Amino acid sequence: MKIVVTGAAGFLGKRLIRALLERGSMTDSAGERRPIEHIAAFDVVPLEGIDDARVQVSTGDLADPAHLERLVDAGTHSVFHLAAVVSGQAEQDFDLGMRVNFDATRALLERLRALGQRAKFVMTSSVAVFGGALPACVDDSQVWAPQSSYGTEKALADLLLADYSRRGFVDGRSLRMPTIVVRPGKPNRAASSFASGIIREPLNGEPAVCPVDPRTVLWLMSPLRAIDNLIHGHELPAAQLSAGRVINMPGLSITVADMVASLRRIAGDEVAARIAFTPDPAIERIVNSWPGNFSARYARSLGFVHDDGFDSVIRAFIADASTVAA
Amino acid sequence: MKIVVTGAAGFLGKRLIRALLERGSMTDSAGERRPIEHIAAFDVVPLEGIDDARVQVSTGDLADPAHLERLVDAGTHSVFHLAAVVSGQAEQDFDLGMRVNFDATRALLERLRALGQRAKFVMTSSVAVFGGALPACVDDSQVWAPQSSYGTEKALADLLLADYSRRGFVDGRSLRMPTIVVRPGKPNRAASSFASGIIREPLNGEPAVCPVDPRTVLWLMSPLRAIDNLIHGHELPAAQLSAGRVINMPGLSITVADMVASLRRIAGDEVAARIAFTPDPAIERIVNSWPGNFSARYARSLGFVHDDGFDSVIRAFIADASTVAA
Ligand SMILES: NC(=O)c1ccc[n+]([C@@H]2O[C@H](COP(=O)([O-])OP(=O)(O)OC[C@H]3O[C@@H](n4cnc5c(N)ncnc54)[C@H](O)[C@@H]3O)[C@@H](O)[C@H]2O)c1
Ligand SMILES: NC(=O)c1ccc[n+]([C@@H]2O[C@H](COP(=O)([O-])OP(=O)(O)OC[C@H]3O[C@@H](n4cnc5c(N)ncnc54)[C@H](O)[C@@H]3O)[C@@H](O)[C@H]2O)c1
Repeated sequence: MKIVVTGAAGFLGKRLIRALLERGSMTDSAGERRPIEHIAAFDVVPLEGIDDARVQVSTGDLADPAHLERLVDAGTHSVFHLAAVVSGQAEQDFDLGMRVNFDATRALLERLRALGQRAKFVMTSSVAVFGGALPACVDDSQVWAPQSSYGTEKALADLLLADYSRRGFVDGRSLRMPTIVVRPGKPNRAASSFASGIIREPLNGEPAVCPVDPRTVLWLMSPLRAIDNLIHGHELPAAQLSAGRVINMPGLSITVADMVASLRRIAGDEVAARIAFTPDPAIERIVNSWPGNFSARYARSLGFVHDDGFDSVIRAFIADASTVAA
Repeated sequence: MKIVVTGAAGFLGKRLIRALLERGSMTDSAGERRPIEHIAAFDVVPLEGIDDARVQVSTGDLADPAHLERLVDAGTHSVFHLAAVVSGQAEQDFDLGMRVNFDATRALLERLRALGQRAKFVMTSSVAVFGGALPACVDDSQVWAPQSSYGTEKALADLLLADYSRRGFVDGRSLRMPTIVVRPGKPNRAASSFASGIIREPLNGEPAVCPVDPRTVLWLMSPLRAIDNLIHGHELPAAQLSAGRVINMPGLSITVADMVASLRRIAGDEVAARIAFTPDPAIERIVNSWPGNFSARYARSLGFVHDDGFDSVIRAFIADASTVAA
């Protein structure tokens, strides 16, 4: 079986590929379990640090149609589409965001439609599709009202995936992800970048800036659970997806203050003291438009998982950092 | 002031142009009332039957970018974008629907963005964006879950219009319209075509087929109210649009059986007896996925109007048919 992963060199992409290699087999759209023979890992930057004959690395701009025909072919059973321009960048460069987050997704779906094999297509949406007046706990029936271009592009992609699945062009599943923490490495241009930064930087002995109020409620998931859920989302039989293809993931609802308290518990006062609270109105506007809690009833009924507490999220990050390169 | 109307030769387009000519002036995005000097009426078929020096008729495919530059220019203050492929046709021809209902809308928005004058942009969405498990009365917070490609395309356009407005590229307003009845002329390829047909054909002495159960609840608006609301939606100051640019219109919630009873009251038993109930599963599937009732709280707070009862809708149709050509 051939699996294509876009955004393969990214935070989730790299972890997903490691997990797929470890599993060794996956279920195709006909429900048959097949050994994973090829993983086509595509990104603008080359995937490094994975040495396995099953992985073919290629690079390019996914929004350039020339790459698609080579990447996705008649032997492709599944696509994990993770390539994206992050929220902060999509807000600054509208055309880039639309081209990568929407047009490239559409081109991928069109390519799969043309091939006609109804491949599995798993992608990651975001809580940034929500906004406006929101209840304290967002239900699956909550309307989408994005307050950013990134959120708009994710919602556009969700609608397309749903219709391409309904028409039988692909077997799509869009997992609407919480903010994934703790992300290793450097800060990125996502508006949510600080959510990892306030844990990661202090643990690395560096200062961190928190641009939002400590009372801000975030909706989080650890990278471990995110990968579990991506694989689960792929494996679920289409017949179980009775309430649609776009699924609000379960998560952990927590205030920034409680995240800091957790860091203090695990790493001590000196580490927690490395966080400075300096409000940034541009980031606050975007982050405050995202819900901090979801019922995620549909996802729970389908068996998607969530983290039990933030202490274990930090502990997993510390353990991960000592074994996996960022 | 120059106003562009796409879909100008259509049911609503033609009526809107007549209403604009009669009004003589409209409010621009700066809030200034200006005389209507030009109406650029665009459609694939030529607009006929309106003889007024202010109206310039041109024809072409809106999805062909060549037309846009001529049609929409630096002098354009407002666009009423009504051109669309109807639901039944968009379901049969996926590519055509995407091209006209989504790509052409996007191209229009892009053209206005490039011109940079933040023109008013009014378009018509549809209750076909809703589907799946729905409460008896749909609230403004209800998630969109289209069960047709037409509904998907309308939702895609709604998301774009909202983000283009948020970014200040245009001053957009999308009115989510009920099914408009009674439509004169011939049946069309909308799944809702029967809703007009079961009134129009019997009144014209012809047999009509109703493809859905008489207990089916429909969400309706008369063409008179639709035009009032299109003009009201244009005139509303942007500052009042506190809960967004996509607005579920108020309407009339009525069963097919009550529509027939109304026809019987007004035109007699013999006329009502011309309706045969012959279920069509393809149409039933689409129509039953649409909600039959909405709270439309936001729209009501903004002053949008609805019909008080179905008898007056039928009477208005009879009066209209005797004065206006279809
Ligand atoms: N990490 C989160 O908190 C989070 C939350 C919700 C949704 N998501 C979504 O999950 C997916 C993966 O997230 P991540 O955290 O791994 O992001 P990431 O930024 O680490 O990885 C994305 C990858 O996409 C690649 N990419 C960007 N543009 C490309 C293009 N034009 N062609 C090819 N590759 C391109 C980047 O080089 C990068 O390696 C994204 O779609 C993201 O929007 C992430
Ligand atoms: N009538 C309804 O019940 C209803 C309900 C909800 C929404 N709407 C929407 O309101 C708008 C107007 O509806 P209507 O009932 O007047 O429809 P209509 O079919 O009578 O008019 C649409 C017009 O668009 C034109 N058109 C189609 N493709 C075109 C293209 N590629 N380029 C240029 N013109 C093109 C058609 O020739 C037609 O004259 C549409 O967007 C429709 O989706 C209508």
